Amino acid sequence: MKTIVIHGTVLTVNVQNEVIFDGAIAYENGKLTYVGPTPIDLSSYDEVIDAKGKYIMPGLVNTHGHLGMSLLRGYSDDTPLQQWLEEKMWPLEGQFTGEHVKWGSSLSIIEMIRTGTTTFVDMYDHMDEVAKLVVETGQRAALCRGMIGLCSEEERKQKLADSVAFSREWHNQADGRITVMMAPHAPYTCSPEFIQQILDKAEELNLPMHIHMSETQWEVAQNVQDYGVRPVAHLENLGVFNRPTLVAHAVHLTDEEIDILAKYDVKVSHNIVSNLKLASGVAPVPKMLEKGVSVSLGTDSTASNNNLNLFEELKLAAILHKGVTFDPIVVPAEVALRMATINGADGVFQKDQLGSLEVGKAADFIMLDANQAHYHPAHNPISHVVYAGNGRDVTDTVVAGKFLMRNRELLTIDEERAIFEANRMFNLLKR
Amino acid sequence: MKTIVIHGTVLTVNVQNEVIFDGAIAYENGKLTYVGPTPIDLSSYDEVIDAKGKYIMPGLVNTHGHLGMSLLRGYSDDTPLQQWLEEKMWPLEGQFTGEHVKWGSSLSIIEMIRTGTTTFVDMYDHMDEVAKLVVETGQRAALCRGMIGLCSEEERKQKLADSVAFSREWHNQADGRITVMMAPHAPYTCSPEFIQQILDKAEELNLPMHIHMSETQWEVAQNVQDYGVRPVAHLENLGVFNRPTLVAHAVHLTDEEIDILAKYDVKVSHNIVSNLKLASGVAPVPKMLEKGVSVSLGTDSTASNNNLNLFEELKLAAILHKGVTFDPIVVPAEVALRMATINGADGVFQKDQLGSLEVGKAADFIMLDANQAHYHPAHNPISHVVYAGNGRDVTDTVVAGKFLMRNRELLTIDEERAIFEANRMFNLLKR
Repeated sequence: MKTIVIHGTVLTVNVQNEVIFDGAIAYENGKLTYVGPTPIDLSSYDEVIDAKGKYIMPGLVNTHGHLGMSLLRGYSDDTPLQQWLEEKMWPLEGQFTGEHVKWGSSLSIIEMIRTGTTTFVDMYDHMDEVAKLVVETGQRAALCRGMIGLCSEEERKQKLADSVAFSREWHNQADGRITVMMAPHAPYTCSPEFIQQILDKAEELNLPMHIHMSETQWEVAQNVQDYGVRPVAHLENLGVFNRPTLVAHAVHLTDEEIDILAKYDVKVSHNIVSNLKLASGVAPVPKMLEKGVSVSLGTDSTASNNNLNLFEELKLAAILHKGVTFDPIVVPAEVALRMATINGADGVFQKDQLGSLEVGKAADFIMLDANQAHYHPAHNPISHVVYAGNGRDVTDTVVAGKFLMRNRELLTIDEERAIFEANRMFNLLKR
Repeated sequence: MKTIVIHGTVLTVNVQNEVIFDGAIAYENGKLTYVGPTPIDLSSYDEVIDAKGKYIMPGLVNTHGHLGMSLLRGYSDDTPLQQWLEEKMWPLEGQFTGEHVKWGSSLSIIEMIRTGTTTFVDMYDHMDEVAKLVVETGQRAALCRGMIGLCSEEERKQKLADSVAFSREWHNQADGRITVMMAPHAPYTCSPEFIQQILDKAEELNLPMHIHMSETQWEVAQNVQDYGVRPVAHLENLGVFNRPTLVAHAVHLTDEEIDILAKYDVKVSHNIVSNLKLASGVAPVPKMLEKGVSVSLGTDSTASNNNLNLFEELKLAAILHKGVTFDPIVVPAEVALRMATINGADGVFQKDQLGSLEVGKAADFIMLDANQAHYHPAHNPISHVVYAGNGRDVTDTVVAGKFLMRNRELLTIDEERAIFEANRMFNLLKR
């Protein structure tokens, strides 16, 4: 089946950030076969889709989240991170079964499809439920069984065994749409020994690592107190960065720490809304970008966001760092757009397959209704997407050539059912 | 005609921030006659509207903007404020006729109706065009002919005469939906003499003042250099604050300056996105709120935002100040919601008529489609509106009991025509 989408404004996010007016993309077997001006001869295509008045751009990549936690959206706001975690989140999460995770994750996946995220990273528990949802809904995901080490030796062993079994069952499944990463929760919740055991398994299974790091000042100070070094040196010393690694947050970094991240090509997931809402701070993104660190965007969970509309992170990435550094040049629109797309692909170690519209890459793309007042005058599409756009402008979400949403209609998941079941499961929790 | 809207979740924004599940509001002759639980007997109403699955809340109030500048959306981004103004904005704005302002403002009004703003402040030129649009579209507005004093004595006189004539023609017109403020652009663009002349007219006509103030560090330093004092003392010395005054921005303030603003009950329009994008900085909002200053939200123009979706400012007001002060308690959801509604009403000096759903106030309200994944689990409506909501969730926008948008259909303005004409006018400008 050869499909071509024509007459759209194509934001390629290729090396030149090329924008093609009256552009087209074609695909077959889930891969892009053409990106360029709308051709005159369309006779070789089985299906022709008219995208007049629409933007066509790569699907967004959300490089950090906890999907199941959408069950706790709005349960606790305006609270310090440690108190929020220890008194609010963990007691409720402790009651979670696979059924809770299934319906919380369903809310999350619906939101992501609606707002143009085609690939997401999820670090959580009961990950089989999430993997099954990915299979059913057609999204692309890097999944991790998150491991908190604050428990008995036996429980830690069980978590690691779960993690290994999960990776053996799911890595590279669903036509390659699912990949797996090994995920110690954080240096402050996992002992060096536990991190070492996880790292050994990651090496054995040839999987990347995903870990929270340097999210709060408290956590950095705690690391220094416990281990005599800050978190970056701690993880470097443990050898974590010898494996491909994606760290989430990286808010509190010295210049030397940024140099270490650059040296090992550690990928950073910048969780801008969550870091603000939890009062964690603002990550030094302009400095990281300047030193060549690959920075992508993550929402974190809806318990600290409280949505998964990555267009919010996209705009904030472009405006927040200007405001706090007093430098209106940093993180221009094109760079923010790359963070939400191609850098995200890099964050899940699939830069050669995802994150831009180029021949040979996966047909993961979204279409936006640009026939609305806030996309006009019509001369500057990248600016409009980053500064004026809204995740709710997305009309179509496509992964590997398959429409998950078409003309705003969800095709692979039942929103009404998910809303009903999520409320039911939430109301069953002891609060 | 007596109308009642039933079975909605009503966010009243009254003094207790009361939320009514299965609530209703009724109105007649543009005023609210009932706010409470859905009554059993509906026989006294001529029209009954079912809002099941929807939130009903006060329309948002956008307390600072320049509607006509939407014609310059995306024309210049990622540039320092003074250079952006002097090299990019002013040369193009210098070519604007009433026709440019009409179509730029049309884009703006469409966006505001779509994203739930029922009252806006506009400071610009060719204000007759904007007033006519307000009459036609049914919105509510506080309009100001902005006066930049960097011109000849004769031109300044003409601007002031324009301003006076505009206020005589339009203040309290359109069934009271239009009010007028007197607006010297800023202390750095208007001499003390010019500000004094404008102030005299404001006193004579009994109108409030609206002015940009302390937006950038540069501007504050310039004020000290030119007049020996910072902008707040400068305006206080000129007697501006003896009149009801709304200042836009107020980013760079000392504690003493905040005390002065509180003392005179000066209203502050916090333009959070614009201040970040132009790298102006972050206003000390928690301190202002603590000292009792009335802070509302403004978008500024789409040339520095680049949209008019006040839900972005609403969420940012609740998260940004937490992140930059490392205090997760400041500006909780309820306070942010008040900034976008009742404080906005205060900012246009109509707190007794607008900004909350209470009997006797204007029937200015919006409805949101809460039957979507990101509004669930459904237990915390204020949190969901502030932290998870999106201006594009607005389905209905009502001013003085008249629907301007119903089920997402615009009823008083033609979006297709506005897009066409705005592009045509933009393309005629010399760039």
